[in-house]
Formats: sequence, structure tokens, C-alpha cells
Amino acid sequence: MFIYLRTVRFQDTDAAGVVYFANGLTLCHEAYEASLAESGIPLRSFFSGAIVAVPIVHASIDFLQPLYCGDRLLIHLTPKLSTPFSFEIAYQLRLQNQPEQLISRATTRHVCINAAQQSKIALIPELMHWLDQWQV
Amino acid sequence: MFIYLRTVRFQDTDAAGVVYFANGLTLCHEAYEASLAESGIPLRSFFSGAIVAVPIVHASIDFLQPLYCGDRLLIHLTPKLSTPFSFEIAYQLRLQNQPEQLISRATTRHVCINAAQQSKIALIPELMHWLDQWQV
Amino acid sequence: MFIYLRTVRFQDTDAAGVVYFANGLTLCHEAYEASLAESGIPLRSFFSGAIVAVPIVHASIDFLQPLYCGDRLLIHLTPKLSTPFSFEIAYQLRLQNQPEQLISRATTRHVCINAAQQSKIALIPELMHWLDQWQV
Amino acid sequence: MFIYLRTVRFQDTDAAGVVYFANGLTLCHEAYEASLAESGIPLRSFFSGAIVAVPIVHASIDFLQPLYCGDRLLIHLTPKLSTPFSFEIAYQLRLQNQPEQLISRATTRHVCINAAQQSKIALIPELMHWLDQWQV
Repeated sequence: MFIYLRTVRFQDTDAAGVVYFANGLTLCHEAYEASLAESGIPLRSFFSGAIVAVPIVHASIDFLQPLYCGDRLLIHLTPKLSTPFSFEIAYQLRLQNQPEQLISRATTRHVCINAAQQSKIALIPELMHWLDQWQV
Repeated sequence: MFIYLRTVRFQDTDAAGVVYFANGLTLCHEAYEASLAESGIPLRSFFSGAIVAVPIVHASIDFLQPLYCGDRLLIHLTPKLSTPFSFEIAYQLRLQNQPEQLISRATTRHVCINAAQQSKIALIPELMHWLDQWQV
Repeated sequence: MFIYLRTVRFQDTDAAGVVYFANGLTLCHEAYEASLAESGIPLRSFFSGAIVAVPIVHASIDFLQPLYCGDRLLIHLTPKLSTPFSFEIAYQLRLQNQPEQLISRATTRHVCINAAQQSKIALIPELMHWLDQWQV
Repeated sequence: MFIYLRTVRFQDTDAAGVVYFANGLTLCHEAYEASLAESGIPLRSFFSGAIVAVPIVHASIDFLQPLYCGDRLLIHLTPKLSTPFSFEIAYQLRLQNQPEQLISRATTRHVCINAAQQSKIALIPELMHWLDQWQV
């Protein structure tokens, strides 16, 4: 299982004094990026989507507790294949100093697409390797 | 039904050339803010959450088509009461020049909280009025 | 002179209850985008920078007063040519209901570049037309 | 001198494929937050500005080279006292694997304010300690 340590920053917060809800998903995406980099996938070309694009087609998040500037988060990430063309990632957010308590959980669904033809394709080998590495 | 017109801006996009997924929810939240303002709710005090806070406890979004810089969006917003303490908003995103085609749909769930006691409370009258105004 | 009306949104704010400083520049960039659209420049292709890129090489901002969620801003934008290859935009931010008082002022400098060769080129005709239209 | 390592993320980029200009300042602010935390300043209360606020009154940034998703940046931060009430931070951004080349430089100016009276006050001891620790 992949775990990403991330400190909540001022930029993530809003005038209610907590993390702006949509930024909760941005924190999760950062964990995804870190897991890809850890598997040796070059982020710049992967995310440009020039040849193969892997857009997010669905995302959801639940907040059980608010998150504050300076909070040190552990983000657990677990990917799994959904179809030959798509995968899903489950995220769990916890405080580093209170790891037993779940603060937030989220999901993203990603589809593999041939950019030129705009058609679904089987997951590229780099992503299959990444899945093998981090799924439980 | 409340409809909010919003042009996709450069800031909303990412290096794949489309709207960054989490920003899709930010577009929806803007429509929510505009509907509150239209109902006469002062945004600064409402969102400070000093006395009554109305945090988002759940959000989800589906992307059926990508969104590009400069796209002129119509965001339809429909709120409904879920429990005496909470409400849900459904959003539909369409292009102004192709309104028959759904581009994205999203949901947010909001809970009304007494900030001092951190306990759920019945929706405040301003929100009940807002609900009456925009629900179908 | 181009004037852009923009309501400060929750997403623009931070846990100090005001607009996050870097978002002040984002508000200005929105005014720039609106002025380009008003001059008939298609935003999607312009900002993709595929053939001609117009990156910002310098930006600065001064805050004279804080900005709050819900504030209705008038952003005045004035472009001027700096060199044959570059232009500068001056921005002034004021509240719609207190237009005599300056809240913030900012500057951005933009350079016109041939994307393939990564070399400076003279401003493209569309930008010269835009300059003519909005400079004082 | 304080050095902060930061990987450029997808969220930082825009449809031109590089870091969105205003996000360059956000990267710098992250380095500032990390330096405060390193000096033992609790970020949540510091940035809430409830008693003492330290708003940014000026910011500027120069881009010498573009920044791409996945770039590993070293951000050098050097604070110095400007007046008894204010300080300035200079930032230099370089790539970890090409540290001799400057990619971007930026400045922020911060003023210390009594939140209740909205009047300038001398820098609080925690900030004087932070200045002593990181200024050259």
C-alpha cells in the first residue's frame, strides 16, 4: 500500500478556516502522482496526455472531520483494475499523530484513452506495473 | 431552477489541456454561491461560519466530456432537503451553445452546524428560504 | 479602458478570511482573458500556446486593502507595448460600491514566442489589434 | 539559508503545459510555511491571524525558464527585516538536477498587524527568532 505524507498548506484552506472541499481531492491526486513517480513513470509526459490520456471520469470524497492548515496527513492509496480500460483508486486520509481516526475518504476513476482516436484502450504496461505494485 | 453562466478560465485548466478534475467541483460551488447571493444571503458572513457553519460533508462529480479554456458553461443547480439538518445540491453542466448535451454532473451534501457547540442544528431560516426558492 | 466585474468567491479566500495573495493575480488574469475574448481572440487555442506562446515573464501585485468573499470588484486593465516582442498590463482593483478607493494594483509582462523555435517574435496581429482596442 | 524541496504537481500547471504564473508565488509561500514550521511556529494559529495578522502587502515574480509537471525544485528563501513592522523574503527557484541555473526569482513583503486595532505593530518575538534563524 502506498502512503503519502502531506502537510496541509495555507493555500489549501478557505475563509471558514479549514481545507476547501475540492482541495481534498487535490490532496488525493498528489498522492496518486507520488505513487506514479515512485513506480518510475515520468510525470510530465504522462500527464500531458499527448499519446495516451488517462482522464478522471468520476471522483467522490467524504469528510468525517475538518482539516486545518499545518495538519500532517497520511494519505493511503489503493488502486484496483475496474475494467480492461479503467481503474479506480481508494484514498484514506488520516492525521499522522492520530492514525487510528479516519478524517476523509475519497475515490477517483480513471479511463485509458488513445488521444488521437479518442477511444478507450487497454491499460498501458506502465500502469499495469503501477497497479501490481500498489494494489492489495 | 437556478442557472449560472460561467466561462472556463485558463486557471481552471491543467497540462492535459482541459479543466483539472477537482476544479469541476469548484465551478459547481461558484453556482451555489451565486444562488445564495441571489437569495439575499451575505456571502462573507455566511462562509466565515463563525456562528453557523454549513460544511460540505460529501461531494461527487462525473465527467462525460472534457471542458476547455473559453468554454461557456451553463450550470443548473437544484437543492433539496435531505434531513432536518442537511441538504443536497445536484448540478448539471452543459455548454451554452450545445445545451442538449450533458458535459458533467455533480452532487454536494451540506450539514448545518452550530459552530460553538459543533453540533448539528436545523437549517437556518435563510437556507430554508433559499431551498424554497430554487428547489423544483 | 477595459473593466471587468468579478465577485470574490469562497475558493479565492484562505484561512485568514481574505483573498489568498497569489489569487489576486489570478483575478487580474481573468480580466485579461475577458479582454481577449471581447477582442474576438479564441481563448482555447490562444492559451494552448501550440504555435505562438505568450508566457508571463514578470508579475507583481500590491495590496492596499484586504478583499473578502462576496466583494464585487471592478478590475481596470490597461495594456501597453513594451518592446516589439512584449507588452505589459496594468491592473487596478476597486470595489463596485466604493470605486474611488484603490484596493490593489498589479502588473504582468508578457512575451510573444514562436513555440517551435522558442525564440521571441513580434506581437501577432490579433494582439496588436487587442492592444489598439484597450490601451489608453 | 532555508531550502525547500518541492515537486511540481499537475494541479500547478495550466493548458499551456507549464506552471500557471500565479502558482509560482504559491510555491514560494509553501517554502515560507515550511520555514516557519521548522522554526517551531504553529501554522494553524499563525495563519488564522486572529490576534496578530501578517498579511502580504506586495509580491513579485520573474520567470526565466518554464516549470513542468514533475520538476523537482529547490526553493531558496532568505528573509530580511525592512522596517520594525515589516519584513521581506527573497526566493530563488532552481531545478534539483541543475542547481546552477536560476529558473525563477520572487519577493514577498509582509506587515505585522494587531488584528483587533488594525494597526501596525513591531514584529512578534516568534518572527524575530525566525528571521534570526534564516537571514544571511
